[in-house]
Amino acid sequence: VRVGIIGTGLIGASIGLACRARGDTVMGFDRDAEAQRFALASGAIGEAASRDTIYATCDAIAIATPVDVTLEEVRSLEKRTFRPGQFVFDVASVKAPVEEAGAGVDAFVPTHPMAGGERSGPAAAREDLFVQRTWCYVPMRDERRTQAARAFIERLGAHACSVDARDHDRIVALTSHVPQLLAFAFTRSIEELSAEDGARVVRALCGPVAEELLRIGRSSSQMWEPIFEANAVCIESALRRLERALGDRRLSG
Amino acid sequence: VRVGIIGTGLIGASIGLACRARGDTVMGFDRDAEAQRFALASGAIGEAASRDTIYATCDAIAIATPVDVTLEEVRSLEKRTFRPGQFVFDVASVKAPVEEAGAGVDAFVPTHPMAGGERSGPAAAREDLFVQRTWCYVPMRDERRTQAARAFIERLGAHACSVDARDHDRIVALTSHVPQLLAFAFTRSIEELSAEDGARVVRALCGPVAEELLRIGRSSSQMWEPIFEANAVCIESALRRLERALGDRRLSG
Repeated sequence: VRVGIIGTGLIGASIGLACRARGDTVMGFDRDAEAQRFALASGAIGEAASRDTIYATCDAIAIATPVDVTLEEVRSLEKRTFRPGQFVFDVASVKAPVEEAGAGVDAFVPTHPMAGGERSGPAAAREDLFVQRTWCYVPMRDERRTQAARAFIERLGAHACSVDARDHDRIVALTSHVPQLLAFAFTRSIEELSAEDGARVVRALCGPVAEELLRIGRSSSQMWEPIFEANAVCIESALRRLERALGDRRLSG
Repeated sequence: VRVGIIGTGLIGASIGLACRARGDTVMGFDRDAEAQRFALASGAIGEAASRDTIYATCDAIAIATPVDVTLEEVRSLEKRTFRPGQFVFDVASVKAPVEEAGAGVDAFVPTHPMAGGERSGPAAAREDLFVQRTWCYVPMRDERRTQAARAFIERLGAHACSVDARDHDRIVALTSHVPQLLAFAFTRSIEELSAEDGARVVRALCGPVAEELLRIGRSSSQMWEPIFEANAVCIESALRRLERALGDRRLSG
């Protein structure tokens, strides 16, 4: 299989490593020249290539960029032509806007691997990042391409899970986006308190749960901000639900 | 050293295991007869004894009960007499009310080990629970007893850390109590969403951060509720601080 990767960050580079370990030819592109060089040097991609070359030659093409860039890229697919054996998938954390952007493109299948962590970039990539993890996909009109995407996911060791794009966004707003928002806010609050009381005593009084939230809070806000924006309505509802569950202890008076 | 443990849950039983490993004689009491039997059977205490016997014979006495029970027990210390070589300490997560309750008792030193986890009870006890963890104490009028408590803490491998009771409560409200509140609320929200959308898809879309929050949410609410109550004012302020850090995305409209 010839695999093309657009965006060689954590997810893209991990797909590259996993595919190359299975004998695929992998070419990759990143608009950040340094990230692309790193992916090449670390073996995540076997060859650097332009987007045009990737779309012209690869069978399976992963768009693994931040959400806002993904939406642009998916919208641009309409201008391209695809062979019957080709399919393109994205890996963004929000699915309804991506599905809408690619609605006119038969070759496109929206997907989302539930993998990652607080470290981003190709240096954090791992060949086994997707093993035993859920990787969902949104079934599209083109049944053959949908099945090809599903087979690609399962070949990397992940559990393929079919979801409706709108359900996905509503659910991950609570299971993923709200926890990340809270971790960022918690980290800012701890920094504030440390400035007031001294970092040493505040750090000493951080238990394991606080350490975990601070670890999550070290994630790239550059990656998360477009996700929060793209899923703002669902996140708002999930925050309301969390607030109701907090009961009397409202986060706002 | 003769060590007495009142309350043989996770913390009390772990103190027992750690002290016995260091050659101490350990006697213990729990008003839950089953917890006391388990602590004896598991070797966390060498002997079961009444509270009166413990206060009469032990050199170091740990009050390791839920916060509300701890306050009662500390208040009752005024009616007892202590030898110069004896000291009593508690391990509750809130310090100002405990310090106040024990203000008239020279033998008493408030402390708080930053250890524990979502599992409670003597079955979760570990001899090394305190190794390399912060264990803070509130310096009291009786300098000799304060130093004895500090030495006891360090002997179990923990980092002894002197704190003001009010500062402690203000800081742990953010570093410990608010994260636990959020984990409980998150767990309830996920249960609610699972009832609406189906547990299988919701669980499939839980990433590592959600799994971590759900793990923390399995903590004993019976243990946490008295903590939330005893530190309500500081928790309220910490929630306000977190809300300010959330910025536009208020948890309440």
